[in-house]
Order: sequence, then C-alpha cells, then structure tokens
Amino acid sequence: MDTYKLLEQVKNGELSIAEAEEQLKKLPYEDIGCAKIDHHRSLRSGFGEVIYSAGKTVEQMRAIYRSFYERRENVMGTRASRDQYLALSQEFPEIEYDETARILGLYFNRPRQTGCVAVCTGGTSDIPVAEEAAQTAEYFGCRVNRIYDVGVAGIHRLISKLDDIRGANCVIAVAGMEGALPGVVAGLVERPVIAVPTSIGYGANFQGIAPLLTMLNSCAEGIATVNIDNGFGAGYLAAQMNRLAGSKS
Amino acid sequence: MDTYKLLEQVKNGELSIAEAEEQLKKLPYEDIGCAKIDHHRSLRSGFGEVIYSAGKTVEQMRAIYRSFYERRENVMGTRASRDQYLALSQEFPEIEYDETARILGLYFNRPRQTGCVAVCTGGTSDIPVAEEAAQTAEYFGCRVNRIYDVGVAGIHRLISKLDDIRGANCVIAVAGMEGALPGVVAGLVERPVIAVPTSIGYGANFQGIAPLLTMLNSCAEGIATVNIDNGFGAGYLAAQMNRLAGSKS
Amino acid sequence: MDTYKLLEQVKNGELSIAEAEEQLKKLPYEDIGCAKIDHHRSLRSGFGEVIYSAGKTVEQMRAIYRSFYERRENVMGTRASRDQYLALSQEFPEIEYDETARILGLYFNRPRQTGCVAVCTGGTSDIPVAEEAAQTAEYFGCRVNRIYDVGVAGIHRLISKLDDIRGANCVIAVAGMEGALPGVVAGLVERPVIAVPTSIGYGANFQGIAPLLTMLNSCAEGIATVNIDNGFGAGYLAAQMNRLAGSKS
Amino acid sequence: MDTYKLLEQVKNGELSIAEAEEQLKKLPYEDIGCAKIDHHRSLRSGFGEVIYSAGKTVEQMRAIYRSFYERRENVMGTRASRDQYLALSQEFPEIEYDETARILGLYFNRPRQTGCVAVCTGGTSDIPVAEEAAQTAEYFGCRVNRIYDVGVAGIHRLISKLDDIRGANCVIAVAGMEGALPGVVAGLVERPVIAVPTSIGYGANFQGIAPLLTMLNSCAEGIATVNIDNGFGAGYLAAQMNRLAGSKS
Amino acid sequence: MDTYKLLEQVKNGELSIAEAEEQLKKLPYEDIGCAKIDHHRSLRSGFGEVIYSAGKTVEQMRAIYRSFYERRENVMGTRASRDQYLALSQEFPEIEYDETARILGLYFNRPRQTGCVAVCTGGTSDIPVAEEAAQTAEYFGCRVNRIYDVGVAGIHRLISKLDDIRGANCVIAVAGMEGALPGVVAGLVERPVIAVPTSIGYGANFQGIAPLLTMLNSCAEGIATVNIDNGFGAGYLAAQMNRLAGSKS
Amino acid sequence: MDTYKLLEQVKNGELSIAEAEEQLKKLPYEDIGCAKIDHHRSLRSGFGEVIYSAGKTVEQMRAIYRSFYERRENVMGTRASRDQYLALSQEFPEIEYDETARILGLYFNRPRQTGCVAVCTGGTSDIPVAEEAAQTAEYFGCRVNRIYDVGVAGIHRLISKLDDIRGANCVIAVAGMEGALPGVVAGLVERPVIAVPTSIGYGANFQGIAPLLTMLNSCAEGIATVNIDNGFGAGYLAAQMNRLAGSKS
Amino acid sequence: MDTYKLLEQVKNGELSIAEAEEQLKKLPYEDIGCAKIDHHRSLRSGFGEVIYSAGKTVEQMRAIYRSFYERRENVMGTRASRDQYLALSQEFPEIEYDETARILGLYFNRPRQTGCVAVCTGGTSDIPVAEEAAQTAEYFGCRVNRIYDVGVAGIHRLISKLDDIRGANCVIAVAGMEGALPGVVAGLVERPVIAVPTSIGYGANFQGIAPLLTMLNSCAEGIATVNIDNGFGAGYLAAQMNRLAGSKS
Amino acid sequence: MDTYKLLEQVKNGELSIAEAEEQLKKLPYEDIGCAKIDHHRSLRSGFGEVIYSAGKTVEQMRAIYRSFYERRENVMGTRASRDQYLALSQEFPEIEYDETARILGLYFNRPRQTGCVAVCTGGTSDIPVAEEAAQTAEYFGCRVNRIYDVGVAGIHRLISKLDDIRGANCVIAVAGMEGALPGVVAGLVERPVIAVPTSIGYGANFQGIAPLLTMLNSCAEGIATVNIDNGFGAGYLAAQMNRLAGSKS
Repeated sequence: MDTYKLLEQVKNGELSIAEAEEQLKKLPYEDIGCAKIDHHRSLRSGFGEVIYSAGKTVEQMRAIYRSFYERRENVMGTRASRDQYLALSQEFPEIEYDETARILGLYFNRPRQTGCVAVCTGGTSDIPVAEEAAQTAEYFGCRVNRIYDVGVAGIHRLISKLDDIRGANCVIAVAGMEGALPGVVAGLVERPVIAVPTSIGYGANFQGIAPLLTMLNSCAEGIATVNIDNGFGAGYLAAQMNRLAGSKS
Repeated sequence: MDTYKLLEQVKNGELSIAEAEEQLKKLPYEDIGCAKIDHHRSLRSGFGEVIYSAGKTVEQMRAIYRSFYERRENVMGTRASRDQYLALSQEFPEIEYDETARILGLYFNRPRQTGCVAVCTGGTSDIPVAEEAAQTAEYFGCRVNRIYDVGVAGIHRLISKLDDIRGANCVIAVAGMEGALPGVVAGLVERPVIAVPTSIGYGANFQGIAPLLTMLNSCAEGIATVNIDNGFGAGYLAAQMNRLAGSKS
Repeated sequence: MDTYKLLEQVKNGELSIAEAEEQLKKLPYEDIGCAKIDHHRSLRSGFGEVIYSAGKTVEQMRAIYRSFYERRENVMGTRASRDQYLALSQEFPEIEYDETARILGLYFNRPRQTGCVAVCTGGTSDIPVAEEAAQTAEYFGCRVNRIYDVGVAGIHRLISKLDDIRGANCVIAVAGMEGALPGVVAGLVERPVIAVPTSIGYGANFQGIAPLLTMLNSCAEGIATVNIDNGFGAGYLAAQMNRLAGSKS
Repeated sequence: MDTYKLLEQVKNGELSIAEAEEQLKKLPYEDIGCAKIDHHRSLRSGFGEVIYSAGKTVEQMRAIYRSFYERRENVMGTRASRDQYLALSQEFPEIEYDETARILGLYFNRPRQTGCVAVCTGGTSDIPVAEEAAQTAEYFGCRVNRIYDVGVAGIHRLISKLDDIRGANCVIAVAGMEGALPGVVAGLVERPVIAVPTSIGYGANFQGIAPLLTMLNSCAEGIATVNIDNGFGAGYLAAQMNRLAGSKS
Repeated sequence: MDTYKLLEQVKNGELSIAEAEEQLKKLPYEDIGCAKIDHHRSLRSGFGEVIYSAGKTVEQMRAIYRSFYERRENVMGTRASRDQYLALSQEFPEIEYDETARILGLYFNRPRQTGCVAVCTGGTSDIPVAEEAAQTAEYFGCRVNRIYDVGVAGIHRLISKLDDIRGANCVIAVAGMEGALPGVVAGLVERPVIAVPTSIGYGANFQGIAPLLTMLNSCAEGIATVNIDNGFGAGYLAAQMNRLAGSKS
Repeated sequence: MDTYKLLEQVKNGELSIAEAEEQLKKLPYEDIGCAKIDHHRSLRSGFGEVIYSAGKTVEQMRAIYRSFYERRENVMGTRASRDQYLALSQEFPEIEYDETARILGLYFNRPRQTGCVAVCTGGTSDIPVAEEAAQTAEYFGCRVNRIYDVGVAGIHRLISKLDDIRGANCVIAVAGMEGALPGVVAGLVERPVIAVPTSIGYGANFQGIAPLLTMLNSCAEGIATVNIDNGFGAGYLAAQMNRLAGSKS
Repeated sequence: MDTYKLLEQVKNGELSIAEAEEQLKKLPYEDIGCAKIDHHRSLRSGFGEVIYSAGKTVEQMRAIYRSFYERRENVMGTRASRDQYLALSQEFPEIEYDETARILGLYFNRPRQTGCVAVCTGGTSDIPVAEEAAQTAEYFGCRVNRIYDVGVAGIHRLISKLDDIRGANCVIAVAGMEGALPGVVAGLVERPVIAVPTSIGYGANFQGIAPLLTMLNSCAEGIATVNIDNGFGAGYLAAQMNRLAGSKS
Repeated sequence: MDTYKLLEQVKNGELSIAEAEEQLKKLPYEDIGCAKIDHHRSLRSGFGEVIYSAGKTVEQMRAIYRSFYERRENVMGTRASRDQYLALSQEFPEIEYDETARILGLYFNRPRQTGCVAVCTGGTSDIPVAEEAAQTAEYFGCRVNRIYDVGVAGIHRLISKLDDIRGANCVIAVAGMEGALPGVVAGLVERPVIAVPTSIGYGANFQGIAPLLTMLNSCAEGIATVNIDNGFGAGYLAAQMNRLAGSKS
C-alpha cells in the first residue's frame, strides 16, 4: 500500500520496476495455498499475528503455525479447539492452550504489559469471553484488571469495585442475559467502555441478540459495541486505546 | 359462565329453561352491533370499563360511550385521539381528555385511592406511557407515586429516590432506549416490578424491541413484562397487585 | 446500599470510616473468585438463594454450594443437569434433584407454605417449565395448586377447573404452541396472571416466540409475561404476589 | 392449458395449426398493455373476476374495468381507494363502493347466495377485514352470517353465539392483537376454520405477525391460515368450501 | 359445552344437579394425571383421536395409549420416534409404526376411504411431511392420490399430472425450498389448495420460513396455509373438506 | 489503481514523483465537496455515469449534474423525485424525466441498442421497478423486450410468451407478492435469470422480504438475485451479460 | 413444453393424438417413484444432471444414480455426505467423492474446459463453498481460476491478484463474516460478479445473513447474489455467463 | 456516588448527616419536573451537557435550556427539529442551529480543539450523520478532519486519502447501504475505527440493519460499532479516545 515510498525508490533507481511490482505483490503476505499470511504486524510492532481458528482444518492450522514457527514470530489462535491443540502440540511442543479462553499460543517473546485495561463481567458464565478479551489485551501489551460477576441485578457488587474500574484507560464490559452492565458502567466512568454481548441466556435472549441490542441502544455515553462473544475484538480495541494513552505512563 | 348457579335455579324452578338460556346469552354483555359491551366490572367492583379507542370510528366510540353514559357507569378510553375527544365532547360535555396519556374519560364516581404504586421512567420521553399507566392505576383505585427521568445512565438519580420506590406495593418501571431500568430497580426492591418497554429510541431499538428483550432477559428476579407502550396493561396489573395487598392498609 | 444507616453509625462513632468502607465493600456478598455470592436473602427472609446453573462448570457449582452448605443456608439451583447433580451429591449427600424441573436443592429449613398459587399448563409437554415455576413458588413459601393439560383447543377442560383457578391469589399459566391459555384464563379470573411461554412447538413457533408474542399482545387484562421457559421467574413473581396478599390469611 | 382438446380438434381438422396456436396464445386472456386480463371465470362460472387495486393507477384501473364493462361481466376490486372510486364512477356510473371493505364493484348479475359461511371477529377494529371476507364470499355465491366482537378475552360472548357458528359449512375467524379466536373456535366446531390475522394491535404485535404466528401454531385441529389482512383470500376459500358442500342444500 | 341439553335434562328431572355438574366436569375427558384425554371424537365419528407425541415421555405415551387400548378406540400418534414405538410395542403388540411419516397407530377399526384428496410434493425430500398428511387424511376416511416430485422448477412434470390433481376434492401441496408449488397448483385447479411449507432447504430458507412466506403471499386464489412441516394439520383439514363434499359421492 | 503504468512512466522519466502522486490522487475522480465524481466510465465506454438520487439535496444534485453537463457526458439519476426534476430542469433544459421509472437523464449521445434483454413482471404493480431495469439496460446499450403481467398464478400467460423470453441473452424477472416468477422462468429458459423482488404486497410480504427469500431459495438453476426494488442493479447486470454475448451478433 | 412441434407433428399425421399425449406426459422425465428424473440436459448439452443430495436416503440416491448409470450419463450430487458416497461406491465403483466440496460424481465424459471463471474467497474457511462453485463450473465446461483468502481486511492481497481476476468472463466472490469482498471486487472489475455469502462467522453473523445483506445492499454495480452457501448455484450461473461469452474464445 | 469523600466529611464533622444525605440526593442533578438535569460535566470539564431532543415537547426543551442558560453552561441538543429551534430562539437569541447535523447549541465558551479525529463517509447521503459526529467531537474539544464520499465501491477514492486518515488518533467511519467502509479502513490504519451504520439504503437494507451487521461482523481488527445513525455516540467516543492520546500533542 505504501505507494509513495515505492515510487520514490523507483525514481531514485533504488528499485527496478519489476522489483517494485514484485514487492507490491509479494511483500505483504506469504501465500501458503489455503491462506495468505500477514507477517506485517510482527515486523512492525513485535506483537505477532492472530489466527481465527474456528472452521480451519488441522492441516491448515499446522501450515499456518509452521510459517510463524519458522520465523520465531508470536502467533495466537482464537476459538481454538482442544483437538487443534492436541494435534499441533506434537509438532510445536512449546505451544500453550488456555481451555477457558480457547486460545492457542506460540509465544517467542512476551510483550511488557503497561497501562491498564479493566475487564468486567455480568456473571460467572461470561468468563470465557472475558478471558479471550483479557488475554488478547495482554498479548498486545496491556496490563489487565479482571473484575468478574458484577452484574447490575445486584448493583452493590459493581459499586464496591468502582475505584478499580475508574483506574483503567478503558473498560471492557462483558455481559449476556439482558446485557445492562456496559450502560451502567459507562454512566459511572469517564473512559471508553467496550461492550461485549455474550450468547449466555435462553429464550428471548436469542443467542446474544438481546444484550447486543441493549448495548447498541444504551443511553449512557461512551459505549462501543463489538459482535456477540467477540472477546478478541474487544481486547484488540482496548489495546489500541491503551496504546493511545501510552505516552502518559 | 356461572353454570352451577343457573343449574341450581333451574332445578329449584326459580328459572325456566328458556329464561336460563336467555340469561346465558344476554346477561354478560350488551350487543350494540359493532361491539359487545361488558357491564360486568362496573356492577361488581364499581370501577367501570376501559375501551381501547385506537382504530375505532367516531360513530363506534359514540355508541359505546352512550351505553355507559345512560347507565351512569365510569368508562375510560385509552389511545384516544384529540379528534375522538372533540367529537364526543359535544354529546357528553362531562367528558375529560388527558392529552399526554391520551385517555378519554367519563367519570361518574371516582374511586378512593389507597395503597401505593410507584411509577418510574428512564427518561422524559417515556412520560406519556407512564401517565397511561399511572392514570389507569388511579382509575382502579390506587394511590400513585410518580418518579420520572431516573434512567440507569446516571444511576445516582435512581438511588436518591429509592425510599420512595421501596414504599410502594409494586413498581411500574417504564423505559425505552435500552430499557435497563426495570432490572436495576428489581435488584434494589423486594416488590414485583412491572416492566413497560416504550418505543422511544431509534435504529437498533426497533420501535421498542430492544427494551422489550432487555426486560424479558433481565437477571434480576421479580420482573413482569407487558407489551411495548402498554401503559394501560401495566396500570391494570399494578391495581390487581395493590388490591392483593389491600388488607394491610 | 443502606448508606443512611452507615452514615448514622459513622456519625455516632459506632463505626470508623475504614470499617464503614470495608462493610460497604464486603458485606453485601462473598467473593469466591468466579462468583460474588449474596447471602442477603437468607439472612433477611430465611428463604435462601437461587443459582442459575446452566453454563456453570462443576468446579464453580461446587464452590458456590459449599459456601451455602457451610452456612447451613438453603440454596436452589435451576437449570441444573443430572451431571451437576451427580458431581455435587458426592460432597453434599443431602442434595436433592428433581429431574423434571431440573432443580438441584440443598434445603436446611423448609418454609411453611401459605396462600395459594395456581399453576396451569396448556399441554403435557409444558410440565417441566410448570414444575420449575411450582417448585420455585413452594421454595419461597407458597402453597401451589397444579392444573395441567387444560389448553384452549378443548376449552371445556379449562372451564371444569375454574373454581380451583379462581381460588388462588395469582395464576401462573404456562403454554407453548400458540400460547393462548393465559389470555383466556385472564378473561375468566380477577387475579394477576403470570404468562410463561414455552419453547414447545415447531416450525413457525420459533422456539417459543409465537406464544411469547401471543401473551404480550393479549387483549385480556391482567397478564404479566416472563421470558420463554422462565418457570423460575414466574414462580418468584408469584411468591411476591402471594406475599402481598399474605396479611389476609 | 387444455392441450388435449386442442390436439383433438387439430387431429379432426376442426382447427388448423395456426388457429390452434393462436388460441393457445390469445384465448386465456386479453392483453391491454399494462395487464393481461382473464375472462375465464366469468365464462365458466358466471361469478366474474377480482382485481387487486392497491398500487394500480387510475388509468390502469379504468382500462381494466372498461374491459369488463364492455363484456357486461362482473368485476370486483379489492383494496380500492375512495380516489379510485371517484375517478371510475364518472365513466361507470353503476359502480358501487363499500368504504369499510374498500371494495369497488361492477355487478351485472348477482349470484344467488346459498349454503352458509360464518364470519367472526375478535374485536370491533377487525370489521373492515371481516367485511372484505364476507362480501367476497357473497360475491361468489355464499350466504354469510356475521358474528362480530366475540374475542376470547370475554369468552362468554363467543359461547353465546356457538349455535350460529356451528350452523355454517365453514367459519372465517378474523382477529388481530394476539389472534387466539380461530384456535378457540376450531376447538368448538367441526368445520374448517379459515384464520385471518389482522394488523390491528401495537408494539410486539408487529403489524399482524403475532396473530399470524398464533394461528399457524394453533393446537386446535382444522385451521387454515391466510395472509395478514387477507379478507379476500379467506372469502374466496370459504366460497370454494361452501361449494364443495353445495349438493347438500 | 352442550349446556342446553343438560339444562333440559335437569329441568325434566332426568338428571340431578349433582349429576349434571359431574357430567360437565368428567364427561368431556379422562384425567390420567399428566394429560386430559378426549374420547369425544371416537364416540361421535368412529375415527379416533390423534396424539402429538414429540416431547412426551415413554411413560406418558404408555398411559395415554393404554386409555385408548382399553376402550378399543383408534389412536394415532404423530411425530412419534422409533424409541417410542419400540417401548410401546411391547405392551401393545398390534401397534404399527410408519418410519417415513413417523406415525404410531393403534387401529381397531379402519374407516372406509371415500372421496379424493390429492397430495403433491415439490421434491423428494418433502415426502415425509406429505406422508404425514396423506396418512392422516386416510385415517379420517379419505381416499388419497399421491403425486410426488412435481416442483415448479420443471413445470412439465406438474402439468403432465394435472388431470389427477383436478380430480380431487382438495389438494395438499407440500413444498420446501422456495415453496412455489401451491401457488402454481392453485392457478391451475378450482379446488381449495392446502399449502404445507417444509423445513427442507438451507441458508435463507430459514428452516421453512421462506416457503411459508411464499405460500402466505401467493397471488393465486384459494390457498390455505398451515404451519411448517404440519402434515397432520393439512391432512385433517383435507378430511374436513372431503367430508363437506361427501354427499356427492 | 493502475499502479503498473504509473510506475513505468515514473521509471521512464515521463512522470515526476510529484506528478505521479498527484495523478494517483486526482485522476480517478473529481471532488466537488459533497461528492467525489467518477468520470471513468464515460471516458472508457462512452456510456456515462449513474447517480443514486434518493436522499440527495437539490443543491447536491445540481452540483453533480453540472459536472457532467460541462463535460457533455451522459448522466442518469435513479430514484429521482419530481421535485428534483423540476429544480434541475431550470438549469439544464435538456434534462428528461420518466415518472414511472423515476429516472432523470441528461443524454448527450445515445448508445446503439444491440443484443436482447427480456424484462418480465409478475403483475401490473411491478412495472415501475421493471422500467427502471429496462431503461438502465437501454442506457447501457441493450435492446429490451418488455413482457409484463405474466405472473405464475395464471401460468398460461407466461407460457404463451416463452418464445420471446427464450430469444434474449438474459432475462430480468421482476415480481412482488410471493415472487415465484423467476424460478418458473429459470426452469423454462437456458439463459441467466436476474431476479428482482419488489416491495409490492402486504402483511407477511414484509415489504419485499417474501419474494426476496423465494428468489434466493429457488430450486431452479441459473437465478441471480438483486436487492428489493433494485431495478437499476438488474439492468446493469443484464447489460454486462448482454455485452459478454456481444461478439455473437 | 414444445407444444408447437407436437401440434405440427399431429397435424402432419406423424404423431397420433394418443402418442402425442403420451409424449407430453412421459418424455420430459423418468418417474422412479420417489423422484421424477430429467434426462433433458444430458441429451441436449452433453453436460449431465445435478442432484441435491441433502436429505435423500441412501435408497433414493441409489435409485437416482442407477438411472444415470444405465444411460451412461454424467451425474453430479451436491451436498453429498461421506455416508452416501460409501454406500453408492459399492454399486458404482467409478464414483468419485470430493470431501471438501461434498460433491459425488459419476463422470462418463468430461467436458472440455473453456473461457474463464475466477473464484475468490474472503478467507480460508470459505473454501468448501468456493470449491462447490468451482467444481460445478468445471462440470459445466468452464476453466476456473481459484484465488483464495483475499478478504478486504487486508486489501493488498486482493489488489495483488487483480490481473487474474480481471482476466475472467465473470467472477464468483465467496465470503462469510461481513461479506464485503464482492462489493470491493465489483468496484475493481467490469464483469458480472456472482456473490456467494457463506455461513462462516458467529454472533450477529446469523449463519450468513450478515454477508447476504451486505451483498444485496452493495453500492458497487454488477453484483448478483445467490443463497447462503449456494456454491452450486453460483457455479451454474457462472457457466451460463461463460457460455454467453463463448464465441469470443 | 463519591461515598468515601462524604463519609470522610461526616467523620470530620465537616458535614452533618442531614447535610450529607441532602447532598447525596440533590447534588448530582437538578430536578425540573419532567427531567433531572446533570450539571456535572460542565463543572468538571467545562464542556457542557448534551440533550437528546427527539420526542421532547417545546415546553420541556425550553425548561431544560433555561436551566443551562441561567448557569451560562454550554448545552447541545441532538436530533433537534427546526420547530424546536424556532421556538427556543425567541427566548435564547444566542442559540445556534445546524440544519444538516440537526444540532441546537447554546455555546458560552468554546473549547480549544486539539488532537485529531478523522470522519469519513461512504456516500453523500451519509453526511448528516457524519456532521452530528464531527460537531459532537468538536464540542468536546477535538480537531476534526472530514473526508466524505469515499465508499469502497470505488476504492481509489479512499486510498488517495489514506494519509489524512492515518494522521488521526481515531477514525469515525460512517456508511449506509452495505456499510463496508469501516472494515476496509480498519484494515488500512492502526488506530481505533468507530463504525457508524446509517439508515441510508432501501429494501434488504432494513433501515440500517445491513450496515450494522456488516460492521459487527467485520474481519478487520479494531472496529467499535455504535447504533444506527448514532453520530453523537461516535463523536463522544472519539473525543474520549482523542483525550486518551492527549498528552502527546
């Protein structure tokens, strides 16, 4: 995409046209057949890539992880199954698997964790999604403060934890059922609140549509919503926000 | 429906078969062509009847109100338009119209208001539905405590009113947007909370579906939900509950 | 939440600021890591707590039940699986499991059952949800009258049971398929009717949406609706209403 | 479509190929540009055609009615507006318009009305759809018995009319709100019940989806459902059923 | 429900009040605990009852079938599983099970099959629903003509069978995918067409919503729609229509 | 986008870096503030651009049309209102407006119309969408054959026009209500069928969702669906297909 | 359908009426009981038929394949399971099964592959649907260029493949998640783009509704959408378009 | 909410209990009857409050604005109508109204604008929502860079503006129709992207549901979604993020 730099190099004779064209085509990713893998992020930031593992065959996962393994780059798979873990752990013994968060990671260099992201849940059943968010934020260099089971049906639990929540650069609020937590949190803190609806519930919950709508319609200001159960997306966003605040620390 | 009493009267010769059959067919309602009007409630309880006025022509409304007018029975029309009011006020000068609640009433004897029903709203725009609920509850003999604009986005407003809310036999919580008010209220009081979603909002609110789902999915215990904008239904239910508690006052 | 009492105690020197703050934070619940457990209700009312068991791991369930077990407080788990029962029964041999209602209970003192709540179903397949409602109401001290399989497709079955239904302080009407039962019942009794849609049906039933909409839109007055299959919510609400009527008995 | 007869006539030399082809193309309808008009029904049955008028311009309506007018064939327009009526009444002074049913008719020979179709409504607001059904059935030769405002919220009104309903060859049950009427009727009569949901209601009624689902999911046997507000379709179906029973009278 | 006859008998002294009341309560059904069984139909018509078997436990099924077995009344279970069949066949060796239609029948006297009902399907995969319809119609005394796999994507198949279809008193048209079959059939025959959407399809079919909507919106006249996959409902309705036409044969 | 050519020109010294960058930024469109206008198509193909006019203010429309007017390039506005036409006709007297298709055109050179596209409708009310499609195809150089009101409820009308339909390179089938036309057409012709659902209908039509689903689920092979009422999209696609076939003529 | 030819043959005495009628009824398909099989396509084009295998029993599949096997005609089953393959491979050892595309084929003569169809996917998980499309297009005589994992989240991957995509007669763009690929592709190429939403995703993806809506609403011109996961439909359409362009190669 | 400070003041005798309680109840807001107005933000940050004006009567608006006017605090009304503006401008002549953004402002002190927020739109019709976002961000102290009409259907327009977009602390991407813009932007920049779906579109757009789903399901990382047409929410969030980055500038 960096056309200007390429033009400049071509102009300066530092790069032939053919080379420039090749670069444009080959540089951004490695084509391993079933997938085109980005190694950009790792080069730029040292953080490494993330692979959405659901629906990928063991063969595809193995090819993708091998590409990172050979480069000694971090890679973290979300929505990974225990079967994928077991299959890959034979080839990559250093691989780690968190059963709650369903995260399958190869970590060659762990980032220093700075700033602060608060991760709250409405209930106990929301913890897996919250852990996906928390561990993603940690993978991208955030310090994380976990505050679980503080749903609004018993609002004193939330209020007793307000200081912790207010201390973060941003808050991830994870909730299923009616999903009212993010709205109440946003009314109590001044930082951006990333709302994550979960599919926890039954009946007119519709696998997370109810909390999704609650969050999108919240009267409270400062709420950003991500897809149902999308802990990864919330963690990634939180890391971006945490980084925005970075120069302060 | 009282088949046993009829059987008994027929057995005792107090009623001929023909008479019994007539009673069974004619007693329960008055047939005025376009409608079959119940005069039961008025006879039993002294409270009077309620007419859903939306979609009724002025001619139909006039015929129905005349039937009550002649009997000197109370009648209250919900969802009544200003046009219906203007048309009927010529024939029934005593008729009263509340523009906010859209209630069109002929009141011949006003019930004593006892007990207590609290009516809360999340925002200012929810007041019309709340007034329909409050005035319905008053029509059926409840004392009502109105607590408006206490939405959860600024939860201190709600908490500052908790004593008032806890003092009621039951609470009607009216909210649009994300509709989180009833759930938070139910977590703070021990009485039944009647949740009324309103169609206030936009976008993914879907004319009240978002708060309806929020209320149906609430984690808090003790929430009963009625249809979107159904202030009348909430007021009626509250009156039933208030009456259950009646012997206490 | 009881800020006034705390302020008073601080003012009177009965409580130091540090103590008050501690109380505010620790009193309302016990934090066992994955969950924050309320012991309020048991202290106040002697009834005990209810745990929504679906989606909780065996380890989480065990930790939660242990907390109540050690206090000899009642606890009732709804949506509990047979597997959860088998796992917990080893540590808590007194535990009881009702397979139909899917209720997993530790009962140290059983409440006296007073008043009356009628629980009706449209069909035989609605019984599990009805039992969750009935047993919840009993857990909270109600006498329950079960009247099953009285759906409106054969309305004589319902009418033959009217005396029983009219004798209750409130009625729980459980129905799947088209869910017309609560509306017809509400037209025949003067008490609040708690409508519970079930997910029984197929095709355009949409796992309970059809009866849910039927109940929300009922023309009959005095109907409060809860979430699809939410027997617990209905039973809890019924207990609240039954208690409102309590001083009469 | 009658290929066999054509083949036979061609075989017998009664028809040339060119003629046969012409017949096949031209016979079934008259092409007036914007529409292709069937004159079949009128020829076969003497009943005449029906035109869905909504969304047709005055010019299109005029061209269509002229085609029938010139042949002295009956034509009935459903969903016709008062404007369409006023515009057409200038050219066709015999034209009749029913404002409630929104039917615009040119009747050159009225069919004898035989058999019996019962048309019931749940409420007063359902009458326009019911009249579309009733007048359609009459147009196709049925005797119609109108039984309005017998909704299930006050079931004694329905029961007092049972004899009338049971006397019909089939029943059209029209209902908005929760739409429970057809199910209850079908439980009380042995004849086919044609269920017509109306868009009367608000909130979670969703312009008739709620009663539509109620009717599709009814536990009662013998219910056929048509589209929301489709009085015409119900009346047509009823006429077909009434005709099936025809030889009895 | 037959209040008049009861009143008459009480009047004439043929029935004591107590007896009448008993009759009113007990006659219409047999209460076996989990269900209230109607034996009406069998008494009146000789056809026997139908049990919706899905979601019933083996114990419930056994109790229900025993009630019919002892009376030597026909009973037909729809949506019955092979497991239910195997369990019941031990107690009732005469029981028959049709795997395709999932019908579990105890037939003590088979009705004579008269008249004619045509059952068409769009595809091969719609046959199970079509068989439920066809066997239901046969159970209630109809002669059935099966015409399968005549979907509109290859309309010549349908047209080649038109004579068969036109010979029936009414047509059951079963179709999944886009569900266009009933509309095309109704445009080609003069008899009522009962449209049965099936859940066959994928993606934007939404388990039968697509064909359901197609059928409800059909431009063709004379279409009655039943719930998705509701072969039983279609068969029952067809039997009612076939009976209306009965005096002709 | 043509990065290769730019790179080559830079390499050859035909273009300075600054110029290349400028070109990359300015060439592809003209920025008039509220919009960024493409003049590509006109330059390449001589056909001219299309403007979606709905929701644009008169000022915005005027600025956009002026840009084309000054270049003497064709421009066609879809979904244009009569008010937009009246306002623009003052500045651009050559402007033409088709009220049915709602197309507002400035035509400086009209393309020769070749090949053949058939445009069919199910009913008369579908004509506006069909005209948008037909006139779009003509704008892009297609000869169009209009075949209106051939819906499947009277399938003989469609069959009598088969030769015309089969003569086209592709078929646009426009239908509201149940939308079965494209499926039946696709079963009868070998060419691609572009299915256009319209919002004509009522009730469970849901403003065109019913025919949209019908078309997406069609069993017939060779159907491509566009958005509800998207006549323009269908016409554009048809022109692309017609062009593919172009070398044949 | 070819009525004219039949009429001519009958006229000329080349065919008796009885024979003509027979032909009309029997020619178009072979009736094997559970299905009516078309052998048309094979006769006309040499390509062979396609069978939608989902929901067909092994017995039905076997009967259908035998019909083609005996005629030595190609047949390709889509949505075929491994179980169906294993069962049929015993009787037809030449049968081939592609596990990714789930295609079960009997190929007696393979068509020459000409022209070019590009098949792109947004991600790796979309490959099964893409392969169904690609192999269908190949079955009907297209040369296919596969370009996988070029989703718009990393748009440089797509741009680096533009030459390949632009070289095709039409493009099949397969995407799940948000489904933005077809719109971006259509903005970059001049050929028709067939958009295939897949059910890959979670939460508010709703099993493919999200990408389906994205594709239907695309601002880019020249997009035709097929049903969710309908690789076959896309491949068939692409083959039709490729054939339109056929005379050029 | 600041219970600790209050406790401390009570402890120190600086505040009596009665005073503390009063403060707790009165401090946080001003109760003007129909509304409870927060003056918090103005006190804390100097930015002032925002009023959602839709659905408020002129009387309510006037009372609310007067409260701010008297305090000389900024207040900004979103979704304000021209009628509200005209009515209020009589009492508050300094009031300003932006017709495009529908913002009604009383500005007593304008904040310095720092940092940078980029606001992009897909099309011209999205500008009103984008302006609500941009002016909200400016109200809360952000410098805003507007980049309109850069939708993905012509992706060169977007790419030519990449430098501008990459220069911001965060990006607001506003899009209707299929809503693909935020996903493509997020793939090209490293900052958080706030996605705003608009209700611009027709048919299967469903008033903004299509772009909402697109944004929630985006494969690109770093996207936060707000409600349909919620420009205010996006602007507020952007200001929060811009402030996080504040110490850098």
